[in-house]
Amino acid sequence: MTRKKLFGQILKKKSYLCVGLDTDINRIPKHLLQYENPVLEFNKQIIEATQDLCVAYKPNVAFYESMGPQGWQILAETLEHIPKEHFTIADAKRGDIGNTSEMYARAFFDKMSFDALTIAPYMGEDSVRPFLGFQGKWVILLALTSNPGSHNFQRTLQENNEPLFEKVMRSSAEWASPEEMMFVVGATHAEDFKKIREIAPDNFLLVPGVGKQGGDLKKLSELGMNDHVGLLVNSSRGILYAGDAEDFAEKAREAALVLQREMEVVLNERFG
Amino acid sequence: MTRKKLFGQILKKKSYLCVGLDTDINRIPKHLLQYENPVLEFNKQIIEATQDLCVAYKPNVAFYESMGPQGWQILAETLEHIPKEHFTIADAKRGDIGNTSEMYARAFFDKMSFDALTIAPYMGEDSVRPFLGFQGKWVILLALTSNPGSHNFQRTLQENNEPLFEKVMRSSAEWASPEEMMFVVGATHAEDFKKIREIAPDNFLLVPGVGKQGGDLKKLSELGMNDHVGLLVNSSRGILYAGDAEDFAEKAREAALVLQREMEVVLNERFG
Repeated sequence: MTRKKLFGQILKKKSYLCVGLDTDINRIPKHLLQYENPVLEFNKQIIEATQDLCVAYKPNVAFYESMGPQGWQILAETLEHIPKEHFTIADAKRGDIGNTSEMYARAFFDKMSFDALTIAPYMGEDSVRPFLGFQGKWVILLALTSNPGSHNFQRTLQENNEPLFEKVMRSSAEWASPEEMMFVVGATHAEDFKKIREIAPDNFLLVPGVGKQGGDLKKLSELGMNDHVGLLVNSSRGILYAGDAEDFAEKAREAALVLQREMEVVLNERFG
Repeated sequence: MTRKKLFGQILKKKSYLCVGLDTDINRIPKHLLQYENPVLEFNKQIIEATQDLCVAYKPNVAFYESMGPQGWQILAETLEHIPKEHFTIADAKRGDIGNTSEMYARAFFDKMSFDALTIAPYMGEDSVRPFLGFQGKWVILLALTSNPGSHNFQRTLQENNEPLFEKVMRSSAEWASPEEMMFVVGATHAEDFKKIREIAPDNFLLVPGVGKQGGDLKKLSELGMNDHVGLLVNSSRGILYAGDAEDFAEKAREAALVLQREMEVVLNERFG
């Protein structure tokens, strides 16, 4: 999907919401366990209930891997249930030497047809390049994550007083244009978005950490939005597990609607 | 597997060789394509031909993922063909926020029964801790990798003039003991091993980059060995693809034997 098309979808739906499909069989409503494939059934109902409110879906691959080979089948089938106009992100945080990264690119872009893949930057340029140059496909590079451990290394100052995550963003801007690279920037510190937009004015940012992790949607939107919107704000657990009974999909829709309405207000102010 | 048991295996076999099972269906001998499961057949023959010469096997998970759901089945079946006395490493380079890392731990330590998993450190402490505390299981943290991109961030000097990879090693020593944490240190710069042993005197190091990538086995062994040997030296392509005809397993054995004999000389000098 091109940046322009993603921008168009956002304006059309008045939403830059990404729903994280981090489906844990131990947390889904008990009545689904009677289905042959409870996780797939859960995902299908979540997708049906939220598809008009979001522009993207992001399964975290770990949740599917933990189910063994069958999990990969469920991931592939979940992808088939996502409408074509949605942007699809495999949250896999991969990254390895060149020939191995090519294998991962094959797994997520060819075998399965995700639009984007999250990548960890620690191994540097030749671990990222194999994922670039696939038409309409995206690399989403980890920059500043939303977990406490982001302080261990990502915020460590380099000899020029620049935190590591800024160096990652500046360096990788030399490898790929904003037409094929996004960055993960956690919502937990909205004040960072001002500085981040100086470094990466044009890139889309994938923003986890709104909801359960405590990020402030309005503030980060004001500071982080660019003229293509440039934000995909993800919510996973806050939507998936909003309810735990037979009406879980309805509850999930309500939780998604709260976020979408906040987004509509911001979008109307800026683009209305 | 405990550190003591691994040390014992090394002395018994006079080898600290790890064979990397990075099996690419496009590179295996053509006659294997007649088998129902060519990759598994290749792995079985490689394991049979090399098991007395090595103490560890390390499948790179990317190569199996790239085959879709069936690839995970092949990975699990490959693991079953590895004798119990071998140390098994899933080279997956995972790392995610706490609840997701738990899922990965479940996938590799419970669903499949690997002894160790490689982890990328970029997301910090709470992305690593969920992999710790499994009895007999190991985290192998990326420190200094063998690829050109290791210069992009891993060697970047921090404000105290310490390269990032040293900070990673020093920080993570506070999270886990040498009984459950190893580090990946590439063989391409043997001179680094002296400094690395000052930082991590007791940890095992998993060393890729010998062979195709040009590392010097003798020199890095002299500088990197500790009183538990403390080294697992990996070779993948140099062994797997030593031959491309019906005698590929024999050729793989010959390539492994060259490395094992070099190791035997070093071990006899030090522990003989």
